[in-house]
Amino acid sequence: MYIENINSPADLKKLSIDQLEVVSEEIRKILLTKLSKYGGHVGPNLGVVEATIAMHYVFNSPIDKIVFDVSHQCYTHKILTGRREAFINNEESGYTSPAESKHDFFIMGHTSTGTSLASGLAKGRDLKKEKSNIIAFVGDGALSGGEAFEGLDFVSILGSNMIIVVNDNQWAIAEDHGGIYKNLRELRESNGTCEHNYFKSLGLDYMYVAEGNDIPTLIKAFESVKDIDHPIVVHIHTLKGKGYKYAEENEEKFHWTFPFNIETGENLIDFSKIPNYSALTGEYLLEKMKENPEIVTITSATPSVVGFDEEKRKEAGLQFVDVGIAEEHAVALSSGIAKAGCKPVYPVYETFIQRSFDQILEDLCLNNNPALMLVFEAGVYGIPDASHLGFFDIPFFCTIPNMVYLAPVCKEEYFAMLEWGIKEKTHPVAIRVPANGVFSADIPIDDDYSELNRFRVTKQGSKVAVIAAGSFYQLGESVIKALEEKSGINATLVNPRYLTGVDSELLDALKATHQLVVTIEDGIIDGGFGQRVAAHYGSSDMKVVNYGLKKKFIDRYKVEDVLQDNRLTDTQIVDDINEILK
Amino acid sequence: MYIENINSPADLKKLSIDQLEVVSEEIRKILLTKLSKYGGHVGPNLGVVEATIAMHYVFNSPIDKIVFDVSHQCYTHKILTGRREAFINNEESGYTSPAESKHDFFIMGHTSTGTSLASGLAKGRDLKKEKSNIIAFVGDGALSGGEAFEGLDFVSILGSNMIIVVNDNQWAIAEDHGGIYKNLRELRESNGTCEHNYFKSLGLDYMYVAEGNDIPTLIKAFESVKDIDHPIVVHIHTLKGKGYKYAEENEEKFHWTFPFNIETGENLIDFSKIPNYSALTGEYLLEKMKENPEIVTITSATPSVVGFDEEKRKEAGLQFVDVGIAEEHAVALSSGIAKAGCKPVYPVYETFIQRSFDQILEDLCLNNNPALMLVFEAGVYGIPDASHLGFFDIPFFCTIPNMVYLAPVCKEEYFAMLEWGIKEKTHPVAIRVPANGVFSADIPIDDDYSELNRFRVTKQGSKVAVIAAGSFYQLGESVIKALEEKSGINATLVNPRYLTGVDSELLDALKATHQLVVTIEDGIIDGGFGQRVAAHYGSSDMKVVNYGLKKKFIDRYKVEDVLQDNRLTDTQIVDDINEILK
Repeated sequence: MYIENINSPADLKKLSIDQLEVVSEEIRKILLTKLSKYGGHVGPNLGVVEATIAMHYVFNSPIDKIVFDVSHQCYTHKILTGRREAFINNEESGYTSPAESKHDFFIMGHTSTGTSLASGLAKGRDLKKEKSNIIAFVGDGALSGGEAFEGLDFVSILGSNMIIVVNDNQWAIAEDHGGIYKNLRELRESNGTCEHNYFKSLGLDYMYVAEGNDIPTLIKAFESVKDIDHPIVVHIHTLKGKGYKYAEENEEKFHWTFPFNIETGENLIDFSKIPNYSALTGEYLLEKMKENPEIVTITSATPSVVGFDEEKRKEAGLQFVDVGIAEEHAVALSSGIAKAGCKPVYPVYETFIQRSFDQILEDLCLNNNPALMLVFEAGVYGIPDASHLGFFDIPFFCTIPNMVYLAPVCKEEYFAMLEWGIKEKTHPVAIRVPANGVFSADIPIDDDYSELNRFRVTKQGSKVAVIAAGSFYQLGESVIKALEEKSGINATLVNPRYLTGVDSELLDALKATHQLVVTIEDGIIDGGFGQRVAAHYGSSDMKVVNYGLKKKFIDRYKVEDVLQDNRLTDTQIVDDINEILK
Repeated sequence: MYIENINSPADLKKLSIDQLEVVSEEIRKILLTKLSKYGGHVGPNLGVVEATIAMHYVFNSPIDKIVFDVSHQCYTHKILTGRREAFINNEESGYTSPAESKHDFFIMGHTSTGTSLASGLAKGRDLKKEKSNIIAFVGDGALSGGEAFEGLDFVSILGSNMIIVVNDNQWAIAEDHGGIYKNLRELRESNGTCEHNYFKSLGLDYMYVAEGNDIPTLIKAFESVKDIDHPIVVHIHTLKGKGYKYAEENEEKFHWTFPFNIETGENLIDFSKIPNYSALTGEYLLEKMKENPEIVTITSATPSVVGFDEEKRKEAGLQFVDVGIAEEHAVALSSGIAKAGCKPVYPVYETFIQRSFDQILEDLCLNNNPALMLVFEAGVYGIPDASHLGFFDIPFFCTIPNMVYLAPVCKEEYFAMLEWGIKEKTHPVAIRVPANGVFSADIPIDDDYSELNRFRVTKQGSKVAVIAAGSFYQLGESVIKALEEKSGINATLVNPRYLTGVDSELLDALKATHQLVVTIEDGIIDGGFGQRVAAHYGSSDMKVVNYGLKKKFIDRYKVEDVLQDNRLTDTQIVDDINEILK
């Protein structure tokens, strides 16, 4: 056992090559034990154990700086840089974090940014006239993102040391898609010697390492580029999931997984039996596409967002498009398809649609083309990691003219909106898929949403009106109930349905019999839905209180804690209302 | 004279090659006459007269669809598609517009989107099982943007007809920057035969046309790819500014220019004599960089935003970086440079920083690295064209945690904030450079802005408080004056200085002697600054009215009209105040 004695990369450097091989086996065991218990990125990490060991053996971190793109493959790096125990016990993030260690330089989680960020470290080094190696460690999947191209294009003219390790395991989250992957395959098959070479075409120096899971080979390669005076791409061929047969055989499932049984590779919880909007949406879309050959489902490398496994993707045929990790292109493509008279449906995780603000504004909404976006994992119930937060979408979408952003409050309303969104020909539409579970609500459901910004009173009362949007509608129901029980107030409940505008008529009508309007939204308050309501009542006597999330980054949070911290429980809201009405 | 008889591409097809040559000369005269009178994109349009004629001669628009990337080079296209007179008289937009003609498919103005949008038309065509040629016409400058890469990467796997004409005039707005331009040069110098080929490396078919200003050659090339069954890049070598010696000699000045004297090439108005923040900022930054070698100015292909001409760029040396049209990379690069302990300053036009929402949020603000951005042409005084609007920035920046967005109201405050921003080490900072002219204001100026969200009362009064942000501060002054004169109200004037948060203490203090707060901001109201103020007062008796722009796209507007339409004149605001106070 060597790993117990490795508390920093310096300890690693004392070992022989044979001992490093043992270390790699030890790390692989640690990874599998931890991952099977807590879940996480299995395939990406198992594939880079040797490369990470070799980098830390050759380079001198943190003087030499390794920047992991996405950083979902940094587990071995964490183990080798003094965080073994905390990492094993799941106390440390699954991504790099400068707050944890001087060996980490950025908090990351979105793809394709590593080369750009690392090039900033290189430029800073040059301005300071310092000497060090700057290494960007980038997966093949990340290369499909525009920012990755922009980074490589810039590095080519940097004129000083930079090493871009392209970790080619032949997979993004699902299979790779795009022309560049034809080139990577040719490069692998020709041992890096084929006629066309993407990296060389950008003016970059290039080296191919076929045995990307072989420590001596990797050490030799890295030693040969250490202290190089110009940028170079080191293209290493690795095996995603290496050393764990289930991960080697099923790359997509084991890219990221919930806790699993090591012996069988099966998830400890069978999520397929829990009703969820991903699977329901996927089934619905597949049915719709069969009925109408002009509907096309687009994904930016996350087909699982609508449960599109290999079989379903095949079934959809040309009506399913995976553009790779290219959210900008996905939006512009949608706009073009809609302009051509077909119906693009683009399901996407909230945290990733952030990459397409300008494309939504210019390519899509300025042209007012009727594409449909489905926004998953939005709000506090989304991904609870600082690098993947999903609660900025309401100000994001609601800033943009022509966009219609709908917030269904239950299953029936969601599918009614989806049905309408597919038929809609007037505006771009986005639907905020509820992330708080699949609920039914006892409310009337419309089938036409073309009269914009019409809120619905779902329970008529007086004195207090609660406008509860989307996935916080159920919280609104609790508040109404608690108000009745605790304070004897028969309050009004409103389902706003539209987030992109306010229903002036309904809001004005509330004035007659209400003195307080409470808004509850599952996103940041700043610039969000509720503030528009507050502004509407600005010059009237109506009192307004907005509930939602404070504008700040939060990390690895428990939903209940965040709700409590933001006074988003029914008890707290009722207490506040009573205080105001005093 | 043939041009008078060309009212659609069909008329062009009747002419002989010799006659087409005459047409190209006639168009060049029309362009120069119009451009010298009204200003516009000179170089890009003079360079593509022949290519546009050849495309319309060979292809069958609008069945075949030509999508012009950015569309700043579509003038000949407009002349040939039935808009000659309206175009000459400046009644039509300088960009493509589907509202104007069935030969236009998108409203465009931001770079690098054309291939993506056109690929959507191609995908729609395929879903509908129709036949046509889809042509994306893309400049070399646009290739540095990530979305352009994403588009090419996707087109490579489209599997059907698409023609990407790369119009290589060897210039973006300024010189091209990035590795890809080394490759374009090699391709030009080798007549398209050099070893490395960016397009082929992405799996695309490729053809080189050296004589990109020769009509017969172009016709032959386009005829050879017409109805092709797979995607192909046709790389044409053209001369930017062709046929007008001043534009050929000074590509940067004549990329886009104000009205000029045809005989001398000189601008009719000498803007260098009008005080402006671009020149002032550039001089200041150059000075600062000389003092401190760790400051670096970054541009995404628009060095003119700070008046950095060739001489100043040389003077700045390695402390000036042009990343090409790559706003995403520019932000991530800034974050990396700041992390390395240096100070990046990134001046950028508001309309283009929209491309970097996720990079500002994740790469920069999540990491809380102290980069400095200077946001030019923000608000109603920015670029008055639907494709380049600049008034979405307040909700955009103010949604993002850790970001400090400052709005100086005068020259002295701007430079004080700039000075502080360069020294600041705690947060990312953006400064909204006033776009309404260079004013001095008689107010005390702080030199430290590290205590965030502190508004300043610049004139103490009572009853009514006017919070006038940034470039609308002068409007706030007029309102205060008019209130005094017309209504005898001695109102309070507040300079908020910070847009990213409210000063709760100051706002609460106003309650004692004020009954109405008026906010005025030079951006859309929805999700903006004023609504945060309204929300703050939601549960109090304070009345609040927000002024700003309605959330909608507006095109080729006159600032005065927009101000009038949004009740943003002092008279209108005073009338409203009197009405509320009744």
